[in-house]
Amino acid sequence: MDETVDETLREVFVSSERLYEGKMVNLRRDIVLLPNGKQATREIVEHPGAVAVVPVLPDGSILMVCQFRHPVGLVLREIPAGKLSPGEDPDECARRELEEETGYRAGRLERKASVFTGPGFTDEVIHIYIADDLVKTKMNPDEDEFLAIERWTPQQIRQMIREGHICDAKTISGMYLLQDQ
Amino acid sequence: MDETVDETLREVFVSSERLYEGKMVNLRRDIVLLPNGKQATREIVEHPGAVAVVPVLPDGSILMVCQFRHPVGLVLREIPAGKLSPGEDPDECARRELEEETGYRAGRLERKASVFTGPGFTDEVIHIYIADDLVKTKMNPDEDEFLAIERWTPQQIRQMIREGHICDAKTISGMYLLQDQ
Repeated sequence: MDETVDETLREVFVSSERLYEGKMVNLRRDIVLLPNGKQATREIVEHPGAVAVVPVLPDGSILMVCQFRHPVGLVLREIPAGKLSPGEDPDECARRELEEETGYRAGRLERKASVFTGPGFTDEVIHIYIADDLVKTKMNPDEDEFLAIERWTPQQIRQMIREGHICDAKTISGMYLLQDQ
Repeated sequence: MDETVDETLREVFVSSERLYEGKMVNLRRDIVLLPNGKQATREIVEHPGAVAVVPVLPDGSILMVCQFRHPVGLVLREIPAGKLSPGEDPDECARRELEEETGYRAGRLERKASVFTGPGFTDEVIHIYIADDLVKTKMNPDEDEFLAIERWTPQQIRQMIREGHICDAKTISGMYLLQDQ
C-alpha cells in the first residue's frame, strides 16, 4: 500500500492580500500558479484551530453538548469542542474544554486524529480526542456560553445521525474514530 | 428517546454588517443578543454549500481523489466533492461532480446526511452521498482542476485515517455513513 500523494498537483504561491482581521477568523486572498502555469486566486479563511472530545462514560454512553450556532441558525448537538487560544497546546485545550463544558475531568485522553474541516477555503484543523476514566467535577462554561449537556448511547447517536438530529461533521468523525478503537 | 433540542439556548439577531463579497465565500459580522440579554458579535463566513460522494465499486473498493488544497498547503486525499452552484440541486451536483472528477457515472446515488463543517464560523453544509452501480465514462475535470484518482479498500482507508494519511472531516464522515448502511 503506497499512501504517498502526488506532489506534482501542488500550486505555487505568488502573492497574498490581507482582507480582514477579526476576532475569530481572518481573511486573505492569495494568487497562485496552477500546475498548467495559469494564475488563480484563492480566498482563505484563517482559523486558530480547535479541539473536540468524545467523552465516554464507564457504561459506554457519550456526553454531548447542545448549543446555538448562529452561523447556521440552529441549536446543534455536538461533541464538546472549543477553539485553540494562540500558542495553546491542543491536549491541554481538550482537557480544559471538556471540563468547562461538561463538568467531567478526563482520566485518560487520547488524540485520535487531526482533521481539516473545509480545506477548500479554510485552514481550520480540529484535533479529535477520545476521553475516558471520567471524573465528575463542576461545569464552568465561559460567561457567554449557553449549553445543555446530554448523555446518549452510541446506538442512539447512530440513530440520530441517520435521522439528521446530529448533523455536525466533527461529531460524526468522532464517532467513526470511537468505533475504530 | 427525546432528540428535541433546548430552544431556550437560541440567540436573537440584532444587526448585520457586510464585510466582503468574494468568489467562493462572503464574510459578514452580526450582532446578537445572548440568552442572558448581553450583546455579542459573530463573524460568519457564507459558503454556497457543497456535495461529497463515497463512490463504491462492485468489489467494495472506494474511489478517492488527491488534490492540492491551498488553504492548508497540502495535497489531500478525499472523497470526490464540489461546491454547489447557485440554485443547483444537490443530487444533480453530486452526479455531475462524481462523473467529472472520477470518470464514473452513478447508477444509484443516495443522500445519507447533510452536515455542517464548521458551525461556529460558517454556514457551509455538505450533502454526503453514497454512490454505487458505477459505470465507467470519462473524466472531465474543470479546466483549472488537477486531480489524481485512486482506488482503495475500506480497510486501507481505515488504516490511512488511523495513520493520518487521510485527514479530511467530510471523508471520515462519509466512511462512517458507509459502514452504517
